[in-house]
Amino acid sequence: MRVKCTVSYDGTGFSGFQIQPGQRTVQGEIERGLKKLHKGQEVKVFASGRTDAGVHAIGQVLHFDTEIYIPESRWPNALNSLLPEDVAIQAAAFIEEDFHARYHVRAKEYRYKVSRSEVRDVFSRNYAYHYPYKLDYVKMREAIKFLIGTHDFTSFCSAKTDKEDRIRTLYDIEFYEEDDVLTFRFVGDGFLYNMVRILVGTLINAGRGVLDPYRIPDILKARDRSLCGKTAPGSGLYLWKVYYDN
Amino acid sequence: MRVKCTVSYDGTGFSGFQIQPGQRTVQGEIERGLKKLHKGQEVKVFASGRTDAGVHAIGQVLHFDTEIYIPESRWPNALNSLLPEDVAIQAAAFIEEDFHARYHVRAKEYRYKVSRSEVRDVFSRNYAYHYPYKLDYVKMREAIKFLIGTHDFTSFCSAKTDKEDRIRTLYDIEFYEEDDVLTFRFVGDGFLYNMVRILVGTLINAGRGVLDPYRIPDILKARDRSLCGKTAPGSGLYLWKVYYDN
Repeated sequence: MRVKCTVSYDGTGFSGFQIQPGQRTVQGEIERGLKKLHKGQEVKVFASGRTDAGVHAIGQVLHFDTEIYIPESRWPNALNSLLPEDVAIQAAAFIEEDFHARYHVRAKEYRYKVSRSEVRDVFSRNYAYHYPYKLDYVKMREAIKFLIGTHDFTSFCSAKTDKEDRIRTLYDIEFYEEDDVLTFRFVGDGFLYNMVRILVGTLINAGRGVLDPYRIPDILKARDRSLCGKTAPGSGLYLWKVYYDN
Repeated sequence: MRVKCTVSYDGTGFSGFQIQPGQRTVQGEIERGLKKLHKGQEVKVFASGRTDAGVHAIGQVLHFDTEIYIPESRWPNALNSLLPEDVAIQAAAFIEEDFHARYHVRAKEYRYKVSRSEVRDVFSRNYAYHYPYKLDYVKMREAIKFLIGTHDFTSFCSAKTDKEDRIRTLYDIEFYEEDDVLTFRFVGDGFLYNMVRILVGTLINAGRGVLDPYRIPDILKARDRSLCGKTAPGSGLYLWKVYYDN
């Protein structure tokens, strides 16, 4: 039986999602929990994709196969009782055996939080990037217009990206401010390594006036990472939602 | 020159506010920062009161004396650059030499957060008490009516309380729910050891139906800690504001 789970985690205490020897990872903790539940039998989980160290998730999605029968609605509690406090299964559902959490992704939504308080907020130090300086939201909106759509995002991903195909479609980018927190929202069919964090760094550069938004089409064309802004810190980033057909 | 500061801290990484040998404390960190700023000279800080391990502060108030001249508006940044990320001076002001952060307190406001989400929220594990079960808000409001006012709160403080006089006045208690978080607000002229956390435990007992609110007057009269609910966890508690005459 294949189980699809929606998982949230606080990335602060993890060396990212993907299992790595000697490191505390989200996948490692979930597989450890599943192994206990399966009386010592290894169960491998497949997620929609990795997240880096310090990056959080509200709605990461993964699947695994099991021979234990637990009713759908009981899966979250059954597994959560075996997981540490910084990971929690939010929902679980039985799904067709040919469903794959990574291969069948239709779109992903990331959000990025920037704390705008003048004095740093002690409670958001691991959950938002503190940027208290002036930002011109009009310029940021101009920049967004050039980024939405289908582009080769080579200039907007880490040089370490191992993917050949760097054409992605950004369906939507927007931002809103609430209680001193500026939140960016990105929806796209896929995101390259560090892409959201470089997009945020670039939008901030547009907002602080060091990048003319009208240069963005040329930056996209140049396919050169060095033309873009700094990679914003991982602690402000959230994998918010993963979209599938069903 | 006497300086009055408003300080926020995330209590998670601290063994409480008050300095203790071999422990990481808020006072210890602030005095260490002040010592650096004063080139090795010890500066003692006086706070409105202690907070326990894991308890947070939005608006703790303290004072200290200094011979360094830094303009009022620069004090927060000057000191924050020498403080760890989980403590931040929010505001500073010069104040009369006879002001005392503890002796001149007129009232204090505490808030207590309860996370009501069905599945535990990974992001609030250190910032709210997770209580997903049913609560009868009507009964909680009835209980509050019996608690507001001037009473001997012996039944509502830890047996370890060293104060003889346990008569305190609660000016206001209320609660509100927002996005799955229930927040209690307590304003009073003073609070005994663990008093807010025992009040929260008691209100939750009223809400879950194991304590009849109409028994509260008798519990107050009995002056017996064992008649009250459990002490709610420290991680949900925030010293929100300290009130002075000026």
